[in-house]
Amino acid sequence: MSLVVVGSMAFDAIETPFGKTDKILGGAAVYISLASSYFSKPVNAISVVGYDFLPKDMEMMKSHGVSLEGVQVKKDEKSFFWAGKYHNDMNSRDTLATELNVLGNFDPIVPTAYHDCDYLMLGNLAPDVQRLVIERLPNRPQLIVMDTMNFWMDIAWDSLMETIKLVDVLVINDEEARQMSKEYSLVRAAHKIMELGPRYLVIKKGEHGALLFHDDEIFSAPGLPLEAVFDPTGAGDTFAGGFIGYLAQAEKNDFEAMKRAVIYGSAMASFCVEKFGPERLIDLSYDEIDNRVNKFVNLANFDILPRKISDFLDQSA
Amino acid sequence: MSLVVVGSMAFDAIETPFGKTDKILGGAAVYISLASSYFSKPVNAISVVGYDFLPKDMEMMKSHGVSLEGVQVKKDEKSFFWAGKYHNDMNSRDTLATELNVLGNFDPIVPTAYHDCDYLMLGNLAPDVQRLVIERLPNRPQLIVMDTMNFWMDIAWDSLMETIKLVDVLVINDEEARQMSKEYSLVRAAHKIMELGPRYLVIKKGEHGALLFHDDEIFSAPGLPLEAVFDPTGAGDTFAGGFIGYLAQAEKNDFEAMKRAVIYGSAMASFCVEKFGPERLIDLSYDEIDNRVNKFVNLANFDILPRKISDFLDQSA
Repeated sequence: MSLVVVGSMAFDAIETPFGKTDKILGGAAVYISLASSYFSKPVNAISVVGYDFLPKDMEMMKSHGVSLEGVQVKKDEKSFFWAGKYHNDMNSRDTLATELNVLGNFDPIVPTAYHDCDYLMLGNLAPDVQRLVIERLPNRPQLIVMDTMNFWMDIAWDSLMETIKLVDVLVINDEEARQMSKEYSLVRAAHKIMELGPRYLVIKKGEHGALLFHDDEIFSAPGLPLEAVFDPTGAGDTFAGGFIGYLAQAEKNDFEAMKRAVIYGSAMASFCVEKFGPERLIDLSYDEIDNRVNKFVNLANFDILPRKISDFLDQSA
Repeated sequence: MSLVVVGSMAFDAIETPFGKTDKILGGAAVYISLASSYFSKPVNAISVVGYDFLPKDMEMMKSHGVSLEGVQVKKDEKSFFWAGKYHNDMNSRDTLATELNVLGNFDPIVPTAYHDCDYLMLGNLAPDVQRLVIERLPNRPQLIVMDTMNFWMDIAWDSLMETIKLVDVLVINDEEARQMSKEYSLVRAAHKIMELGPRYLVIKKGEHGALLFHDDEIFSAPGLPLEAVFDPTGAGDTFAGGFIGYLAQAEKNDFEAMKRAVIYGSAMASFCVEKFGPERLIDLSYDEIDNRVNKFVNLANFDILPRKISDFLDQSA
C-alpha cells in the first residue's frame, strides 16, 4: 500500500556522554523513511532541503526505496540544522542551536505520483504544514498518523487542534500527553486526547516502552532494557517509521495490528539508539530485525495458568 | 508450603492530594502478610509491636490466616510510627516523622511452629535483623526473598552485603538498584547486583511496571495504567506479598513461575493504591483478583504473526 512520509530532512550535530559528531544526516523524514523502508516500498517522502544537503545522503535514501520526488531543493538556502547535547542520563538534553533555514517557509508539494496515498505519516513539523499535506492530497488516506511536540503546543495550539482533528493516530511522549491534556494520569490524558480527534493514541515512555490506547482498550509495550543508549536522537521518529511501515503492509489496521505495529516500532527504535544519528538504520538485515522482535516477545511473554486464585490455597491448612 | 514473613507492624499517618489519615495500620509485614494470605495459608509473621497496637488489627490479621505467634508485644514501648506526605505526582514524598520505638532494638523471635519454613520473605528492616531470622531458622528455607531500601545502603552497607549474599531473590526499586550498583543502565545494574548473591532480581519501576532478571533472561511486567493513585503507601510491600504468596503455592520456582509471581504481585499492588493504607487488601474477593490479573494479561498480550519481516515487502514494488 502506498505510503507518504512528511517531515524534515536536516543536519544534526549531536553530543552525548559517548562522543560528539559534526553535522550529520538527521530530520524526522529521514528516520521515518529509513525505518519504514524495511516494511513497505516505495516510501514517498515530502520535505525540503537546502543547497548544502549532500547528494550521497539522497542516494542512500533512494537505495532504500525512498522516493524524493516530493523533496524540494532550495538553491539559495541552507538545510534545517539542530545541535544538542544530552545529559548523562540520556533522558534530557539541551538544545545548543536551531536554525530553521529552509523549514522557515516550507510550502509542501505533493507530486501526482503520491496521489494514491493510503498511509500518511505526518512527522513532527508545524501543524499548519502537516494540515496542508492532508488538504493537498486528492483523497483522504486510509490511515493518517501524526507526530508532534510540546513546542507546537506552546506556540501554535489552535492550528495543532485543527490538524489533530483530522488524524487517526497520534504518537506523542508522556510529557507531551500530560501537557496537551492537562492531566497527570495517562489514562485520563489519553481519553481527553482521543476526544480531540484521533481514534488511536500512542504514548511513548522512552526506556519504559509505550502505551497504545483505543476506546477503553490499553496495550503496554515494554521498553527493551539496554546496556547503553549511545544516542537517542531520532528514536521517536524511528518508532513512528516502524509503526506506520508495519501497518502499511498489514492486512488490517485493527487494535491487534496496532499492537504489533507498536512492537515493530519499538524494535526499530531500539536499533536507532545504538549508534549516532540514523547510522544503524542504514544497513539493518531482516534477520537482525526478526531477532530483535523476538527479544520483545520473550521480554513481554508470560502464561497465567488457567487456574483461579481460589484454587491456590491449600485447603488442608 | 510454609511461609514466614518478617517486617514491621506499625502506625502510619498519610497525607496525599486526596486526603489525610490519622494513625492507621501500616508496616511491611502487615501489607506482605495480607497480600500473601490470598495465595497461601498460614502466613507466619515475625514482628514487634508496642502496647498501643490495636487488638482489632491483630484480629483482622488472624482472620486472614496470619499467625502472630512470632509477633512480640512490648508492654512499655510504642509501636513504630511513620508520617509522610505525598507530592502531587505521587512519585515522591516527604517523611514528616519517623519514630522507631519498638523497632529500635528489635530482636526477632522464631517460634518452633515456624521452623519448617519453606518460603521466607524478609520485608524491609535493618539487614542485621533480616540476617538474624535466617540464622535462627534451623534449616535454610527453599526460597528467601528480600526487600530493602536506600536508607540501609547509606548507613549499613556492610551488613546489607552480608545479608544479600544469603538470599535467592532481591526486590528493590529502580533508584535503589542504581544506587546499589552505581550503574545507570538497569541491565548493568542487575548483573552487578546478582553477583552479590541473589539469583533473581526484581526491579520495581512504580507506574512503569517491574523487571525480572535471572542469568541473561529478562521479563518486563507492565504497570497497570490507572485513572488515579489514591495512596501509594505499602504498594511495594504488597507487591512482595503477592510475589512470594504466589510462589509459596506454585509447583516450581523457575523463571516462568517467577514471571507469573511478578504479575500476581503487580495485580495485588494495583489494588493497594486504590485506598488509604492496607484497607483495600482486607476484603478482596478472589474474583476481583482474577479479573485484575486478566487485565494484566490483556494489557501485555500481543501476537507477532509467524512471519519474517522479509515477507512484508511487496515484491512487485
